Amino acid sequence: MTTEDIVTQIKKKKSFLCIGLDIDLNKIPLFLLEKKDPIFEFNKAIIDATHHLCVAYKPNTAFYEAHGSKGWDSLKKTVDYLNKNHPEIFTIADAKRGDIGNTSSMYAKAFFEDLSFDSITVAPYMGKDSVEPFLAFKNKHTILLALTSNTGAYDFQTKSSDYKEIYKHVLETSKHWENSKNLMYVVGATKAPYFADIRKIIPDSFILVPGVGAQGGNLQEVCKYGMNKQVGLLINSSRGIIYASQKTDFAEAAAEKARELQSQMAEILTR
Amino acid sequence: MTTEDIVTQIKKKKSFLCIGLDIDLNKIPLFLLEKKDPIFEFNKAIIDATHHLCVAYKPNTAFYEAHGSKGWDSLKKTVDYLNKNHPEIFTIADAKRGDIGNTSSMYAKAFFEDLSFDSITVAPYMGKDSVEPFLAFKNKHTILLALTSNTGAYDFQTKSSDYKEIYKHVLETSKHWENSKNLMYVVGATKAPYFADIRKIIPDSFILVPGVGAQGGNLQEVCKYGMNKQVGLLINSSRGIIYASQKTDFAEAAAEKARELQSQMAEILTR
Repeated sequence: MTTEDIVTQIKKKKSFLCIGLDIDLNKIPLFLLEKKDPIFEFNKAIIDATHHLCVAYKPNTAFYEAHGSKGWDSLKKTVDYLNKNHPEIFTIADAKRGDIGNTSSMYAKAFFEDLSFDSITVAPYMGKDSVEPFLAFKNKHTILLALTSNTGAYDFQTKSSDYKEIYKHVLETSKHWENSKNLMYVVGATKAPYFADIRKIIPDSFILVPGVGAQGGNLQEVCKYGMNKQVGLLINSSRGIIYASQKTDFAEAAAEKARELQSQMAEILTR
Repeated sequence: MTTEDIVTQIKKKKSFLCIGLDIDLNKIPLFLLEKKDPIFEFNKAIIDATHHLCVAYKPNTAFYEAHGSKGWDSLKKTVDYLNKNHPEIFTIADAKRGDIGNTSSMYAKAFFEDLSFDSITVAPYMGKDSVEPFLAFKNKHTILLALTSNTGAYDFQTKSSDYKEIYKHVLETSKHWENSKNLMYVVGATKAPYFADIRKIIPDSFILVPGVGAQGGNLQEVCKYGMNKQVGLLINSSRGIIYASQKTDFAEAAAEKARELQSQMAEILTR
């Protein structure tokens, strides 16, 4: 999928919403636990009810790995279901991988080829040769952590070096890596005031923004500072949408929460 | 497993060798590809031939994930085989995970509970609340990336902030996190001269040292600067050992390479 495809979908759906599929068996409706693959059944129902309201889904791999190879199967079934039934949807493996070159190549194969995701989140700590193997894949996107939504972001990401914070070094340095056009970035919604500075460094890149909802980030603020001519934002909400109800109406309740965010986005897009 | 257990094994086996199980189907003997689970068969043969020469095994998760849920099963069978037949061996999931709190808890469950590894490698970029969920597990170890073996280490890890490189901030800051006694660190063998400074910050911690062999790191140099009273080093070799031969003698050839390193280690330990 190209960036242009994503922009087309955003305009068509009047939405730049990404729904996080972080499935916790303790939080999904009890009656689903009797099914053979509760995680996939839950995801399928959520996708069926919300796909017209969002442009991306983002399963977080931790929630699948916690169930071993069975969880990995649920993950594959989820992305296969999306690719088959909703090929216009942008799929994000929130995996936060990154390792030396030959290992990152293996991760890229796992997520881009075996699982057929459109994109993956990657940690920048190990630098250029840990990220470039992901960037080598055509029409696949590597979403590099820059400034994350959690409080731990202030431990190292905001440390200043040569009068510039580390996350700004990540943004600037990565622009010079091979195939850097395949880069997007993660910036947390809880860091809204930082978006103005960030846009000076990466005016055209897409930014994946977690942290709206449960983590306290504000949609209006993020858009005010972070939006560019192509919109350039994918706003993620996970728990705030998918766990809106634990009863049989869970999918409709999720759709309602997604609709609330989509309506706000539609309003912002027509300003 | 406790740190004391590891030290006991090091003294008993006169070895602080860790063998990396980074299994690439293109590099293992052809006849194994006919087996039902070639990766596990390969690992089993390598383990049977080398377990008396090393104190740890380190499967790199990327090489298993590249084969989807089947690969995940091979990983689980490998660690189960180790736990059952060689419970004295320290097992390391080289997974380089790290995410916001509730997600890191899921990763910790996946690797410490579902897969029963003794330890996992974790990336520090997201800070304290991304690492502490791993540290909360008793007698499990979190091996934090500090200064890695690859050239990309110089992109961000060695950037100076307040007259101190970022990797030193990682070492110092992490010492104050909850349950920091469960921390170990990754420092690449290619960075041998840095070990003296590193030992000033973390005199007592264990350091996992990849990069000897294929990546060009030097064992003598690392030991000269990095060893402490409890040895405090786990030296990893992957490709240099496990791919010593692609023929039917692959396990014996691997044992021979492991023996070479173990002999050097025994000599260093008796100095």
